[in-house]
Amino acid sequence: MNSSLTQRVSAEFLGTFWLTFGGCGSAVLAAAFPQLGIAFAGVALAFGLTVLTGVYALGPISGGHFNPAVTIGLWAGGRTPSIYVVPYVVAQVAGAIAAAAVLYVIASGKPDFVLGGFASNGYGALSPGHYSLQSALMIEVLLTFFFVLIIHGATAPFAPAGFAGIAIGLALTLIHLVSIPVTNTSVNPARSTGPALFAGGEYIAQLWLFWAAPIAGGVIAGLVSRVLYKETR
Amino acid sequence: MNSSLTQRVSAEFLGTFWLTFGGCGSAVLAAAFPQLGIAFAGVALAFGLTVLTGVYALGPISGGHFNPAVTIGLWAGGRTPSIYVVPYVVAQVAGAIAAAAVLYVIASGKPDFVLGGFASNGYGALSPGHYSLQSALMIEVLLTFFFVLIIHGATAPFAPAGFAGIAIGLALTLIHLVSIPVTNTSVNPARSTGPALFAGGEYIAQLWLFWAAPIAGGVIAGLVSRVLYKETR
Amino acid sequence: MNSSLTQRVSAEFLGTFWLTFGGCGSAVLAAAFPQLGIAFAGVALAFGLTVLTGVYALGPISGGHFNPAVTIGLWAGGRTPSIYVVPYVVAQVAGAIAAAAVLYVIASGKPDFVLGGFASNGYGALSPGHYSLQSALMIEVLLTFFFVLIIHGATAPFAPAGFAGIAIGLALTLIHLVSIPVTNTSVNPARSTGPALFAGGEYIAQLWLFWAAPIAGGVIAGLVSRVLYKETR
Amino acid sequence: MNSSLTQRVSAEFLGTFWLTFGGCGSAVLAAAFPQLGIAFAGVALAFGLTVLTGVYALGPISGGHFNPAVTIGLWAGGRTPSIYVVPYVVAQVAGAIAAAAVLYVIASGKPDFVLGGFASNGYGALSPGHYSLQSALMIEVLLTFFFVLIIHGATAPFAPAGFAGIAIGLALTLIHLVSIPVTNTSVNPARSTGPALFAGGEYIAQLWLFWAAPIAGGVIAGLVSRVLYKETR
Repeated sequence: MNSSLTQRVSAEFLGTFWLTFGGCGSAVLAAAFPQLGIAFAGVALAFGLTVLTGVYALGPISGGHFNPAVTIGLWAGGRTPSIYVVPYVVAQVAGAIAAAAVLYVIASGKPDFVLGGFASNGYGALSPGHYSLQSALMIEVLLTFFFVLIIHGATAPFAPAGFAGIAIGLALTLIHLVSIPVTNTSVNPARSTGPALFAGGEYIAQLWLFWAAPIAGGVIAGLVSRVLYKETR
Repeated sequence: MNSSLTQRVSAEFLGTFWLTFGGCGSAVLAAAFPQLGIAFAGVALAFGLTVLTGVYALGPISGGHFNPAVTIGLWAGGRTPSIYVVPYVVAQVAGAIAAAAVLYVIASGKPDFVLGGFASNGYGALSPGHYSLQSALMIEVLLTFFFVLIIHGATAPFAPAGFAGIAIGLALTLIHLVSIPVTNTSVNPARSTGPALFAGGEYIAQLWLFWAAPIAGGVIAGLVSRVLYKETR
Repeated sequence: MNSSLTQRVSAEFLGTFWLTFGGCGSAVLAAAFPQLGIAFAGVALAFGLTVLTGVYALGPISGGHFNPAVTIGLWAGGRTPSIYVVPYVVAQVAGAIAAAAVLYVIASGKPDFVLGGFASNGYGALSPGHYSLQSALMIEVLLTFFFVLIIHGATAPFAPAGFAGIAIGLALTLIHLVSIPVTNTSVNPARSTGPALFAGGEYIAQLWLFWAAPIAGGVIAGLVSRVLYKETR
Repeated sequence: MNSSLTQRVSAEFLGTFWLTFGGCGSAVLAAAFPQLGIAFAGVALAFGLTVLTGVYALGPISGGHFNPAVTIGLWAGGRTPSIYVVPYVVAQVAGAIAAAAVLYVIASGKPDFVLGGFASNGYGALSPGHYSLQSALMIEVLLTFFFVLIIHGATAPFAPAGFAGIAIGLALTLIHLVSIPVTNTSVNPARSTGPALFAGGEYIAQLWLFWAAPIAGGVIAGLVSRVLYKETR
């Protein structure tokens, strides 16, 4: 469909709100519930399903990026016009911050609420498994590279219509199944920014990595896609 | 296909029976089974799959709402004719009550059966994690808003054919992954009504919230969809 | 595609072998593995994925029933020619018995192997949660009714092409999420027969229920489908 | 699309890297995380999603094999030209070794990292459940047979377009749900080779089985597919 810039930016705001509220919300509210909690696998599924459902609901309006590393990676791959990059990224970060704020209000309605890391990303002492900065950097670049490469492939002209939401959403589930213990999984600078503003302190000091690494991975994917998907005769 | 009102109402009755029996049944019978139980993540998957399968089986007959908040939200979005609203909602509530009755008979065939909350929804003392009324209200409005927005998008004229059942069913799984600890997850007044009639007492006294909040979220989604999905030139 | 009766019967044998080996194999080998076992939710997913994958691999040859209650239910709904019923059911039972035999050989290659119920179905003392005969009968009829109704709807002329395997496979996952604690979940007389022959004794004495109830549910679904899916003008 | 041999080999390298890094990475980094780990069911989902996403991203370039048993099985079924077999297998093994190397670097960034089996496959003393060589051999042949048969069916001319990635990926999930306790699940000689080179010793001595059994299963599937899927008149 043809959408105005206002509609596109609204869709990116709503989609990134949904990604951050659904993914981080499952982590904060449900992961460690006594006996019956959803654990890391449930959080991985939740993050993936935010994107799967968001792509079907909002993809026709804005393309369904919900992630600055995706927007910039698709721009590097020649698939998103330059004019959209800044408005999309601003809307994504705003959506993630709004989601973290609403999640904070809801979560604090529990009598024994403890803020903790509030689903923020981290390395070293703030990594769930205490993985080093180097491990965090490597895995975030690598996983975002594959994530954005999958997005290029699943939305290419030769791809079967309609399946992109499934492939992209479940790629994000897979990425979380692997890397929650290392960094709590970012691959998305907006999703990292929202909760970190509430967790504060050291979590904000580590935010740079969760902007730098995903964007680097996304840009490499965009460049690789230019040769990998080039039609030959 | 062209279906009569009797067929439509029968499909809504059967689909809401399936949603309530499958979702609440997984919670009552299997969630807390010693050692091998399915926990909250399994219940979340079960609820989602009732809708995914119900949409493929019954969607062509009635549209596959199975939820008063969906019917009223789609009406607010201009997608369901006014004439269907009351018959659909009546059929949905009847289906949910019938499902709770059958589940009660089956569940009580266990020697050490204890009724407990019987998968009812609740806030405060009746919330699984003892979340406040305010948290319950906010999360039910918010999650139903996104649920009904996803339904609008996934069934819009521009959506790829056939994928709606996947997107909508898995949206309900996601919603449960996030919010079972808060309210036991409603987003569906019919699903809330069935078990509450058997759990009785305070659960019935709290039913108002699980009618008011989902319908409010659904109506907002319907109104937002009118501007978000408006074709521009 | 056009397939010979030999090809059709081979496909039903292979598909029911896959369903029984994959589903019961996940239960026997992996469900209760210390610390890391897949539990009931993993078994539920495994059963569903045997059908999902079997339908995509073998459905174009035989229709992908893999279950006497499905074959007889589709016959009652006017969707499977009478001439196929007996050969299909014989092939299904043979496939399930062969799968149980191979599973027995593999499982007994574990030093401390204990046969136990060998994933057989049961009620009363043989029900995982000790549910009564009445509960077992009710839930098997009810769940097979919905399973076969979903199959009718998802393979009807008005259904979107290609999605049947997803809807039908995930319906079987849902059914297991609800009912493993009650009967260990049958809804399929062939799947029940294979393991019971190895578990022996009382498991064989209870087999009648897992033939009678699923077939009753399937036939009711077939008859209901004739009115529910009837095109009106 | 038309792809050059360089593009095809690059896609097989990347896809097998993704399969090995994602699948073995989930096992090494996340399976046994205290309290919140993803356990065998999460690893099973991760392996399947590497293939599901890889097929959508890279399938149009190379066919999306990512597995020597698949390449050789499809060749036996008359579906892959002989000229591709050796380059594909070399790229697959190289991709798996590279993935294991990167995973080793990342995993060793954890202060208390212990190498252990490093997600290698094994039988007897090296089997997670200490299953015998005979059990390991049987289950690897059997499961690869069904895996490659499903691939033949899901990519046949009569198959609905676009669904192959779902059917094939989820088949690999199912296979892991059943057989992780027996062999840690191979069905893929490249995936077995990568981690074994790092685990060393006895794991390398057992590698022969995880080449022989999957290739045997794949070849049988290829031959069976020639008669099972033969169009009759």
